[in-house]
Amino acid sequence: MKKNDVRHENALINVQKMLGYHFKRTDFLQQALTHRSYSALHNERFEFIGDSILNYSVAKMLFQAFPRLTEGELSRMRANLVNQDTLAQIAAELRIGDALLLGSGELKSGGFRRPSILADAMEALFAAVSFDADFNTAEAVVRRLYAERIRHINPQDSGKDAKTRLQEGLQARHMPLPKYRIVDQIGEGQDQQFVVQCDLGETGFQTEATGHSRREAEQQTAQTALDWMEKHFPLAKTRKK
Amino acid sequence: MKKNDVRHENALINVQKMLGYHFKRTDFLQQALTHRSYSALHNERFEFIGDSILNYSVAKMLFQAFPRLTEGELSRMRANLVNQDTLAQIAAELRIGDALLLGSGELKSGGFRRPSILADAMEALFAAVSFDADFNTAEAVVRRLYAERIRHINPQDSGKDAKTRLQEGLQARHMPLPKYRIVDQIGEGQDQQFVVQCDLGETGFQTEATGHSRREAEQQTAQTALDWMEKHFPLAKTRKK
Repeated sequence: MKKNDVRHENALINVQKMLGYHFKRTDFLQQALTHRSYSALHNERFEFIGDSILNYSVAKMLFQAFPRLTEGELSRMRANLVNQDTLAQIAAELRIGDALLLGSGELKSGGFRRPSILADAMEALFAAVSFDADFNTAEAVVRRLYAERIRHINPQDSGKDAKTRLQEGLQARHMPLPKYRIVDQIGEGQDQQFVVQCDLGETGFQTEATGHSRREAEQQTAQTALDWMEKHFPLAKTRKK
Repeated sequence: MKKNDVRHENALINVQKMLGYHFKRTDFLQQALTHRSYSALHNERFEFIGDSILNYSVAKMLFQAFPRLTEGELSRMRANLVNQDTLAQIAAELRIGDALLLGSGELKSGGFRRPSILADAMEALFAAVSFDADFNTAEAVVRRLYAERIRHINPQDSGKDAKTRLQEGLQARHMPLPKYRIVDQIGEGQDQQFVVQCDLGETGFQTEATGHSRREAEQQTAQTALDWMEKHFPLAKTRKK
């Protein structure tokens, strides 16, 4: 076995361990991890199925966890949980990038850490599990991966993103609104990253974050600012409804 | 039992027969058929779950039926199959309207035949089946309802709608392009219907259709024109790829 083959074999073993699922047919696993730049037998059709497994599984988790929220609130929550940013984050935690099969161009340009490629592979993996076992097994994989994230959702936020919650939190405290500023752009093309600063004005608090999109970086700075605000300026407990 | 109660009971029995599923818990069935104008325990949260059951089930049917189509082609096909028009059509075939629980305002304004209300109830029913039985049973209901529709898809159309196929068919035959014209609008507000004419110019063929939206009526006239064109101006069989 060549050194690269051994490395890829180990990466496949690791992905299965992280997913909590062992494949009977490794061809399904391989295809889920194959980008279109590598082979005609790539993961895009899998992604079509995996996307809907993810949507259903997260929908059901939210439906069960938040019996009092409306359809609109549940939809917004789900959108935050199944978007590219979150999927790419999960893929990074599972080290999916090490197991990807990419064409040489994508390989050189760092495709193994590109959010869109990681997110697509993540969805394709859910489909691969459903093909290798069944729908319910794939749903169980999604539930395991999302359990912690859903436990940490505050239903009063109703799926609002960090920027919105920060703005509302500052308004409730009569504090000045945040200013977001791009302070740097690193890399080029699909590899570009944005460094964004969030400035809370006269409070003196500033924070920076890096992301593959301006939006992603802004949301991250907002989350940090939100944590800081809630720690240092706690509101009196609000009455339960 | 009052006359209306008896009528509603019969409608519920009929819906279950048409779905091919008998509910153990009729409260699930009732809630799926309850519009928000009738009760706070309405079907919108069910719809959130049912929508994703429908999306997955149709995705899988298409994935299996068309092994050579790309993700994009499958997505377009699915969009045509799960949109409001198609769902409302299925709901009408199943006579869901007779079983709906609507507030008096909606009842008077003909809510029981409004496409959006019918489509939402249809999705909510898929969720209700999954709650009463399980996901796989709900998937089986969707598969049964969509089997014929998917059998009739021509994969070469790759999910293109009737207007697009008509235009391409006419171009391939060097025939003039169609003209669509609204010839009448019936009713008001949410009950409004459009009568649209499709005119194939010098061929002399004209057809009309009525729909709840201009788009719906146009698509229907296009389908009729398409059938006419394919019957009277057949193309020589094209080579298989």
